[in-house]
Amino acid sequence: LLPSDFKITVVGLGLIGASMAMALRQLRPAKIWGIDIDPAIFAQAEQMGIIDQGFLDPAQVLPQSDLVVMAVYPELTLTFIREQMAHFKPGALITDTAGIKSRLMAEIPAMLRPDLDFIGGHPMAGRAGAGIGQARTEIFLGTNYLLTLGEKNLPANVALLESIIYGIGCKRIVRLDPDKHDRIIAYVSHLPHLLAVSLVNANMFGVEASPCIGGSFRDSTRVAEINADLWTELLLDNRENVLEQVEHLEETLDSLKESIISGDRQRIRETLVKADQTRRELFHG
Amino acid sequence: LLPSDFKITVVGLGLIGASMAMALRQLRPAKIWGIDIDPAIFAQAEQMGIIDQGFLDPAQVLPQSDLVVMAVYPELTLTFIREQMAHFKPGALITDTAGIKSRLMAEIPAMLRPDLDFIGGHPMAGRAGAGIGQARTEIFLGTNYLLTLGEKNLPANVALLESIIYGIGCKRIVRLDPDKHDRIIAYVSHLPHLLAVSLVNANMFGVEASPCIGGSFRDSTRVAEINADLWTELLLDNRENVLEQVEHLEETLDSLKESIISGDRQRIRETLVKADQTRRELFHG
Repeated sequence: LLPSDFKITVVGLGLIGASMAMALRQLRPAKIWGIDIDPAIFAQAEQMGIIDQGFLDPAQVLPQSDLVVMAVYPELTLTFIREQMAHFKPGALITDTAGIKSRLMAEIPAMLRPDLDFIGGHPMAGRAGAGIGQARTEIFLGTNYLLTLGEKNLPANVALLESIIYGIGCKRIVRLDPDKHDRIIAYVSHLPHLLAVSLVNANMFGVEASPCIGGSFRDSTRVAEINADLWTELLLDNRENVLEQVEHLEETLDSLKESIISGDRQRIRETLVKADQTRRELFHG
Repeated sequence: LLPSDFKITVVGLGLIGASMAMALRQLRPAKIWGIDIDPAIFAQAEQMGIIDQGFLDPAQVLPQSDLVVMAVYPELTLTFIREQMAHFKPGALITDTAGIKSRLMAEIPAMLRPDLDFIGGHPMAGRAGAGIGQARTEIFLGTNYLLTLGEKNLPANVALLESIIYGIGCKRIVRLDPDKHDRIIAYVSHLPHLLAVSLVNANMFGVEASPCIGGSFRDSTRVAEINADLWTELLLDNRENVLEQVEHLEETLDSLKESIISGDRQRIRETLVKADQTRRELFHG
């Protein structure tokens, strides 16, 4: 799959970065290196055998890295690429894993050295918790991987990245326009997170509610266990799309509320039937 | 656990009723019978060995039943008990499994024959799907079981029912005032269902959203696969409490929305941290 001397660097060894390093290792690159701001983290990654070596200073490995996988917050992705521009290996391919894409696709290709190539990526993978301790190679198995391409991407680089993505176990790659990506992600990801957070925060019963909690509350609030720093950044970066989706959800909820207020049995039933059918089509259809 | 000649009838062999029959069977009652409006259902229950025999006509078994477990919709629970009042065995204990309790606790004890006893019950158990085909005895294992007692319940009956509930594998029994029960259930169950339904119905992207869907949307909308007839009844029966919770959720969501509009990074972060901590305390604390 990979050229025999192919070297990879993963920037940021959190849950996604460390899982990515684990999964990429199975593709047998010549070397896989890690960059992290915490030496204890890359020491742990070395001990786990996830990477060959970890570095604090990007300049020590970027000049030898054919592929650089950014696995840090969106803002830091931008800053890192800007500040390290001189150190990337000629012809290197850079990709990222951030959950928002418009801003990165607007800024990164525009500032990139002409010999470098950037392809935006968003693995639809994750698990509860955070950090290298939660990393698992299996989080990519059977998942979708979204790509946002720029105008100047080399077809060979796109093909290589796609074969790597399938190689780590992803089921399907979907290419999306970055603006469309962020608008849809506001609905399928950012909105459920906001609802989960609000549902937990709306508790007016305190611990008295605990024994009454069943599966619906548990599942609906799972993602309220949230990385507050990352999500503050995501919500603000994607602010307009997030607000559009919150407004639309509120209208949809208000409409159902009105049917309950007016006791319109038929309209309530139709609303529930519609949701039931749509949910089944989405997940079992 | 049970007296040697103890006979049980389960009314309604859907998911909960059939699971209850399965679980009760393990307590070795002298007989366990089922009542259903569909002879094909109780024929299936007989074949599965869940019940000894099924009946269309309650008058054939109620006069011999020491315990009657109602596992039908709230409205039908009321109607059935009213219409069958003359047929219950003298001294019988009746309980139900409906997800709302105020109305049932207001009406059933008031109309009950003086020799009968009714204890309201709400198993916090379930699974995806519906009907006898989805029934499993394990759905009760480790779950909470809510009870609403009336003023005239015999202590011996309460003790018997509680020992039966622990006997089928429930972990904890919580006694609640019926009004409090319905108010809390509006928050922990009815509200998550309304949000799941609205989240699914708010899709403005159609199937284009599908490849972007990850775990947060999947879990947040699980209960949008909903029994529309049952839930129309539950939402309308519990209308005032449901509306109180929807309003409060909307206020909570609006507050978060305002922080996003104003770009108040600190307030967004605090809101997320609060939800994160509260969710952890509720489920892991």
